[in-house]
Amino acid sequence: MIKVGILGSTGRVGSLLIDDLANDEQARVGAVHVFDKLKKPVPEDTVVTNDFAVLFENSDVIIDFSAPSATEALLTEVVENGARKPLVIATTGFNKHQQNLLLEASKLVPVLYATNMSLGVAVLNKLVHLASKTLADFDIEIVEQHHRHKVDSPSGTALTLAEHAADARDLNLDDVRVSGRDGNIGARTKDEIAVMALRGGDIVGRHTVGLYNDGEFLELNHTATARNTFSQGAIKVAKWIIGKDPKLYSINDALGL
Amino acid sequence: MIKVGILGSTGRVGSLLIDDLANDEQARVGAVHVFDKLKKPVPEDTVVTNDFAVLFENSDVIIDFSAPSATEALLTEVVENGARKPLVIATTGFNKHQQNLLLEASKLVPVLYATNMSLGVAVLNKLVHLASKTLADFDIEIVEQHHRHKVDSPSGTALTLAEHAADARDLNLDDVRVSGRDGNIGARTKDEIAVMALRGGDIVGRHTVGLYNDGEFLELNHTATARNTFSQGAIKVAKWIIGKDPKLYSINDALGL
Amino acid sequence: MIKVGILGSTGRVGSLLIDDLANDEQARVGAVHVFDKLKKPVPEDTVVTNDFAVLFENSDVIIDFSAPSATEALLTEVVENGARKPLVIATTGFNKHQQNLLLEASKLVPVLYATNMSLGVAVLNKLVHLASKTLADFDIEIVEQHHRHKVDSPSGTALTLAEHAADARDLNLDDVRVSGRDGNIGARTKDEIAVMALRGGDIVGRHTVGLYNDGEFLELNHTATARNTFSQGAIKVAKWIIGKDPKLYSINDALGL
Amino acid sequence: MIKVGILGSTGRVGSLLIDDLANDEQARVGAVHVFDKLKKPVPEDTVVTNDFAVLFENSDVIIDFSAPSATEALLTEVVENGARKPLVIATTGFNKHQQNLLLEASKLVPVLYATNMSLGVAVLNKLVHLASKTLADFDIEIVEQHHRHKVDSPSGTALTLAEHAADARDLNLDDVRVSGRDGNIGARTKDEIAVMALRGGDIVGRHTVGLYNDGEFLELNHTATARNTFSQGAIKVAKWIIGKDPKLYSINDALGL
Repeated sequence: MIKVGILGSTGRVGSLLIDDLANDEQARVGAVHVFDKLKKPVPEDTVVTNDFAVLFENSDVIIDFSAPSATEALLTEVVENGARKPLVIATTGFNKHQQNLLLEASKLVPVLYATNMSLGVAVLNKLVHLASKTLADFDIEIVEQHHRHKVDSPSGTALTLAEHAADARDLNLDDVRVSGRDGNIGARTKDEIAVMALRGGDIVGRHTVGLYNDGEFLELNHTATARNTFSQGAIKVAKWIIGKDPKLYSINDALGL
Repeated sequence: MIKVGILGSTGRVGSLLIDDLANDEQARVGAVHVFDKLKKPVPEDTVVTNDFAVLFENSDVIIDFSAPSATEALLTEVVENGARKPLVIATTGFNKHQQNLLLEASKLVPVLYATNMSLGVAVLNKLVHLASKTLADFDIEIVEQHHRHKVDSPSGTALTLAEHAADARDLNLDDVRVSGRDGNIGARTKDEIAVMALRGGDIVGRHTVGLYNDGEFLELNHTATARNTFSQGAIKVAKWIIGKDPKLYSINDALGL
Repeated sequence: MIKVGILGSTGRVGSLLIDDLANDEQARVGAVHVFDKLKKPVPEDTVVTNDFAVLFENSDVIIDFSAPSATEALLTEVVENGARKPLVIATTGFNKHQQNLLLEASKLVPVLYATNMSLGVAVLNKLVHLASKTLADFDIEIVEQHHRHKVDSPSGTALTLAEHAADARDLNLDDVRVSGRDGNIGARTKDEIAVMALRGGDIVGRHTVGLYNDGEFLELNHTATARNTFSQGAIKVAKWIIGKDPKLYSINDALGL
Repeated sequence: MIKVGILGSTGRVGSLLIDDLANDEQARVGAVHVFDKLKKPVPEDTVVTNDFAVLFENSDVIIDFSAPSATEALLTEVVENGARKPLVIATTGFNKHQQNLLLEASKLVPVLYATNMSLGVAVLNKLVHLASKTLADFDIEIVEQHHRHKVDSPSGTALTLAEHAADARDLNLDDVRVSGRDGNIGARTKDEIAVMALRGGDIVGRHTVGLYNDGEFLELNHTATARNTFSQGAIKVAKWIIGKDPKLYSINDALGL
């Protein structure tokens, strides 16, 4: 039975990870990191700790759905304190220092980093890259939608999709991204990529990448229908990464894409 | 045979008006206003003029798909120079003075004003008002899409849809409209109404009004599949307005909504 | 605090009712009717009973998601035993006798009867009727989608939407409904209404009514994003019906439609 | 300026080819083949001929949207009479002899053969194959929509998409295709692929391939917005094929897929 360590256990996905692992036949919760205390009940033999060294000791692989500062502490444990366990990291919003730490850690342990742990989104990224490259004349517009409580826009997933579209055309997303249109702003420029964020209700996550040309268009959509899409995907790739060589992996590596 | 006068004949919809009237069994082009000269061929008995008085003389009803300054001249002909023919006006972007002129003219002749001459859009406005009022807890988000050449955002049609949604909740659209989201902007506020503009390819016009709540959502979409949707709708209401009393009419009046 | 009595507490929606009321600020579970015993935990001060008189005594309003025989007993308590509390009934499949009991009861207490407690679906039915009537030239096509386990097609909700579309045009749905197209079947006839059923994944419920004409189309969609859509709708109308006069109400009355 | 020769100029796509080439910056109509006479006006310097040798002489590349017998004459000019120009062929319904002629001709000149010249549809076929293979647990459902006059269902394009989905899973489409669902038919079987046909209005062509799983789904859509999608695609591949080696190419070769 694979022992999974959880960082970010008090968040929504962290909580679902605990539930999903309770029903998994190959993996279980080994240790849970908490800063203060954990309100959610966990299986009896689970180690609950605020000590990163203890978290590593009691896990075969660690899944992280936390915040940048917590991930920074996790990565520091690898880079400076010699911890050696595979990491699956889904936290977003890293600064430059934290991004560098991620790279350093991936030279010492296998690290799978994905801003979205959904398998469908991983496939969509691949499809978007291929379509953006092949249909180079088509205008690209991206729309994402999430529930009314989400505080940041656009979603990390939408930005990653936009990066795949931009990379396929040798564009720098920062140069071409548009996040709103208002007023007499003139005709669309050829390279711009809009990434528009809609909010409302309890939408788990919808992303549509459109490619538009004279006479035809393609629209490629991913919709998450349940929040444990992300915990399920993370558990799947956590099983995959055990035993791999130290390296920075993407979810595509796990899917064979 | 109804004689239709056309203002804005060099624009795209104006040009389609000429084509559609050539195939109409009840109406034909009577006169065409031009500022300079008309490149498009017109039927032999058509009066082509840059004189508004001549335009009025040779028309039973005038359809206007031009620009605010041209519409201003048209309305002035009614308000100051005594011209008395029904008007169908589809021009957008009026300033305060032009809006007042429109009201003044509608006391002297019947004026149907609509930012979108599509019958389907008129119905959608009605549906949006009803849904927005009945489902008062639902978050409203609007997305519109047009071809890559459109220079203003959002479309007049999208703004009108947003006004119907806002009016139904006694909100002032200017207070609650959002046209983009970018960065760590916090959770959605209850009353805000996003109106997002997508551009690309040769899309004639797509508008979706979404109403989102916990557990469910509605999405109400209108798509124009051909550009003469607007000229056809304008011809239909032009036939309807002849013989009506002086008043400012909406397309709903013509549809019996 | 409104005390809600629940009939049908062991069913799926009944169970969600208990969960939703636990988080409601204006209403709580007052009493739960069971035939045998209740496995689900309920708040400490809840009355659990197999006696209909006790159920009525401890409730300000009763919500019923049970089966026809249980509803029959509930209505009998009103008609023969003098119980006087408002009723919200979502059970389907009544025989003639049970239908008559429902009418009798509604002369003594306010009764809201609806086969679908989603507010959004109720609004969509209204919108479809209005659009179908106003846009009488438009072709109507309906698509519904549910999870891979659903055994009947099309959904009852899709058929009700189709009936609203047909009624608005004085058509009999049985005469015009189409459920599939395959082969060299010829052009679409004017009056036919397709109701197509898609199945897959864990989709809770999606319904789209499309109206198509030359030049434009409307698509009106409802999507359920969570299974408690129905319990939430029932709680909302239960709050509304308290204090109303004895009468048989529809969900449209509660919505002011 | 590339000179394009047109075979099948009196058909719908052939006519659009003439229009599109009139607005193209890199290519123009060089010669038009007619059996009898051409009613449509062509640019002044266009060669109109019923002689295949003259057609070849006045073209840098030939686009063929005709019928099998005309294509046979075109290919014979290459195989027997030494004509040496690249060919783009979109005619369908060849017999064995004609298929062999196509292969013979492709050893002498570059020949691109495709039954659907839309670039977007070619890309969608590729994306569907990839997604169907990678997400092997997902249920596949396909919906296509066309105008009310279309007599056959489902469209050839929808069937080709379904074949790409089935091939990726080693399924035989004939064994798993479903074209309608009605009644108490039981739960969805794992391998079935629905291909549902909607009809209405003047829809040029919409195809959506959905892949549905617990927790998430993908929907991949292609929409044709104008009937010249096919002529535009043919012009694009005609520019590409000039200068290529003799070989039988597919549209994927032109797209680098």
